[in-house]
Amino acid sequence: MIPVLTRHREAPIESIRIRLAAILLLAFSVLPVPASATGDAGKPDVSRFQLANGMEVVVIPDRRAPVVTHMVWYKSGSSDDPPGKSGLAHFLEHLMFKGTKNVPAGEFSRKVAEIGGQENAFTTVDFTAYYQKISPEALEMVMFHEADRMANLVLTEEVIAPEKNVVLEERRSRVDSSPASVLGETVAALLYKHHPYGTPIIGWEHEIRELTLDDAMGFYKAHYRPDNAVLVVAGDVEAQQVLALAEANYGRLSPGEGAVPVNTIEEPEPVAARFAEYFDERVTTPSFERYYLVPSYQTGQPGEAEALDLLASILGGSSTARLYRKLIVEDEVATSAGAWFQGASRGLTRFGLFGRPRGKHSVEDVEMAIAKVLEDIMEHGVTQEELDRQRNALVKSVIFERDSQTTLARLYGTVLSLGGTVEDIHEWPQRLAAVTVEDINQVARKYLRPHRSVTSYLRPKP
Amino acid sequence: MIPVLTRHREAPIESIRIRLAAILLLAFSVLPVPASATGDAGKPDVSRFQLANGMEVVVIPDRRAPVVTHMVWYKSGSSDDPPGKSGLAHFLEHLMFKGTKNVPAGEFSRKVAEIGGQENAFTTVDFTAYYQKISPEALEMVMFHEADRMANLVLTEEVIAPEKNVVLEERRSRVDSSPASVLGETVAALLYKHHPYGTPIIGWEHEIRELTLDDAMGFYKAHYRPDNAVLVVAGDVEAQQVLALAEANYGRLSPGEGAVPVNTIEEPEPVAARFAEYFDERVTTPSFERYYLVPSYQTGQPGEAEALDLLASILGGSSTARLYRKLIVEDEVATSAGAWFQGASRGLTRFGLFGRPRGKHSVEDVEMAIAKVLEDIMEHGVTQEELDRQRNALVKSVIFERDSQTTLARLYGTVLSLGGTVEDIHEWPQRLAAVTVEDINQVARKYLRPHRSVTSYLRPKP
Repeated sequence: MIPVLTRHREAPIESIRIRLAAILLLAFSVLPVPASATGDAGKPDVSRFQLANGMEVVVIPDRRAPVVTHMVWYKSGSSDDPPGKSGLAHFLEHLMFKGTKNVPAGEFSRKVAEIGGQENAFTTVDFTAYYQKISPEALEMVMFHEADRMANLVLTEEVIAPEKNVVLEERRSRVDSSPASVLGETVAALLYKHHPYGTPIIGWEHEIRELTLDDAMGFYKAHYRPDNAVLVVAGDVEAQQVLALAEANYGRLSPGEGAVPVNTIEEPEPVAARFAEYFDERVTTPSFERYYLVPSYQTGQPGEAEALDLLASILGGSSTARLYRKLIVEDEVATSAGAWFQGASRGLTRFGLFGRPRGKHSVEDVEMAIAKVLEDIMEHGVTQEELDRQRNALVKSVIFERDSQTTLARLYGTVLSLGGTVEDIHEWPQRLAAVTVEDINQVARKYLRPHRSVTSYLRPKP
Repeated sequence: MIPVLTRHREAPIESIRIRLAAILLLAFSVLPVPASATGDAGKPDVSRFQLANGMEVVVIPDRRAPVVTHMVWYKSGSSDDPPGKSGLAHFLEHLMFKGTKNVPAGEFSRKVAEIGGQENAFTTVDFTAYYQKISPEALEMVMFHEADRMANLVLTEEVIAPEKNVVLEERRSRVDSSPASVLGETVAALLYKHHPYGTPIIGWEHEIRELTLDDAMGFYKAHYRPDNAVLVVAGDVEAQQVLALAEANYGRLSPGEGAVPVNTIEEPEPVAARFAEYFDERVTTPSFERYYLVPSYQTGQPGEAEALDLLASILGGSSTARLYRKLIVEDEVATSAGAWFQGASRGLTRFGLFGRPRGKHSVEDVEMAIAKVLEDIMEHGVTQEELDRQRNALVKSVIFERDSQTTLARLYGTVLSLGGTVEDIHEWPQRLAAVTVEDINQVARKYLRPHRSVTSYLRPKP
């Protein structure tokens, strides 16, 4: 899931990806600590409904402040872009701010801003989401407008060309201006030989240029429908009150006709280790990255994703992890080194390792040092002590992260958009607690194998 | 263009590819030598017609023996497979032998065999072709049946499952049983990050399994129509007689409705050098290959493909070429080494280098030796002497290769299926003669650059 945030321009796509991976990992830990530790009292009192037209509704009470987060998630993202139309889901996300047959362009955003609210939207490979952070009284207003633009979007040729320029400029600033992002696009294409996750969310430039009003309306009609949407409301609200508002606003929309088109392309089994090397004059420090194709929470055998999450923490989630201790503290070969696992994904996902050399060291030195750390795990396995420690660190971060209403809403939206359930989320701490040393060793040996990997070197142009 | 020959099982897909590259290169040289050398008398008396329904007809007289080659080419191949339906064009090619509403399955093949004729079919990324080699009297019969199956194919569920097993077995024998082919699939996916040339012609196994009767009929209806077909007849025939037969048989077919669907996906510019490494216990000698993404005769600037053809000859087309002399004769580092260029391709194509180490030498030694040969060309360029020598060798092969009627028919079919003209073929020797040393140095420096390349190592499993 590489999210493309529409309006927030400050960060390049690559950093956002890593940031989101962290958010998702931490988001899972927003959950209550296992029942054994806190009892059921720690479980948020989450309600879930389904409207007659198929739209799912999740309400997460959070009464610390008079604030509400309202999100609508469509279970369609860039991997649903038709072939040759890369960037379409993201382009439509931009166009969703262009007005409806009931309200002119900009009015919804203006109303949110007037009451001091915030709004944004993002597109990932799997889904597209729109959200507002507002005071509780404004919930009805945002629901009216969000429901309105789910059914009544109006696009004209006049808005297509300028908005395309905005997206092209976004591509230049996010991708072209960032050597890591340029390389990242190649790496994604190498990791996914066949699956559309190998295509950039923002789209290839030459295809963005050719996107039309008809393309956008086609995607809108096929995917923007209540039976393909999840409403998440978190904050100072009552479930029944939210349900009543949802029924009044979203409930009156007709469900789409026929089934929602779903991308069913599967990635074939990987066979060969792959590498990419990119030289760019804007690079000052070289860097090493490796991705492994691994199962996600959605595709893996029971327990595999949990074990991969813990393996990432043990390898490189923090300064107490193996990569940090070995590469940065002991060998002084790197200035940064770590590991991450992108657990939430409709299809096969990524386990990542990265490092930047320090001083006179090369990316090859970093690669070799990381390989040694991996080898040690393959041969001797992880220890019970570090599993307990890293799992405990996750549990502690629960308390820390519980503060963020947005993170909470985002977690439920992500899991439900991927076809998961509230129970999947609530039972996650118990499932994490059940992971053994042997489970972790097994996923490491099964998935962190060369033929499943893409290694990339980002280097200064000589 | 990686052709998948349907019936001939003897050779794995990889060798056939290289063989076809050679055929196409040589096929071009079946052409008369430049007018300056032979006068117009050397030009075959080729006739070209277009039927009212849009079907193109090419007749190539060749009266040395009472033999006729009859080919029908559809300008659609595996790159037209719908996403998630890889292998469909090739599967349909198999199913085209299953009978029509007029004749039962096998009757057409039986009639060809009865008169001692030969038949076959093949699918490439760009086109699909069916051909028969027969005596002139049988031309009417094969035209009747080929036209009949262009319009009247009948498929039933009973033929789908068994034929799918035949294709799956073909995949096992062509790809899975050949380490080079297994690696080749990954390499294609790496070279084409976005374009469907990155998908195997025969299809990914899990997608072949899901192909249905409806998929096959859908592809058939969309692509098998006279306005998407080229008829090539070579042999002991008169143009007017062929035209009359073509009008009687193919001319009565209705043109398709609307435009033929054409894959318009373009490959983005490459940015990063890519590598793949594959270990297989069945490999006895390791091997090195490198592909560069380069323009084809169809996509390049005028003269570029001609220069790339000559560059391939100079580098490694024969035992007088640089790679052979340096790696095999002088340094004794390799047992084989060469270069090839796949000139005929609707989209961006491949320039290949390869080598197998000798004795104790490694693939890295071979790679380094090839790199030195390339470096020398980049720095000092090719010489007029070797350009003249290699061009002359091509001209000589004209005389040698003119013998093959099939090669001749295949050349015209290939070029016309790719949207080229008879003139493109006839003027090729003059265009080849116009290539200068500077032209060759320019394409070498422009296209044989690391960021355009995929390097692969095939190694024995340790």
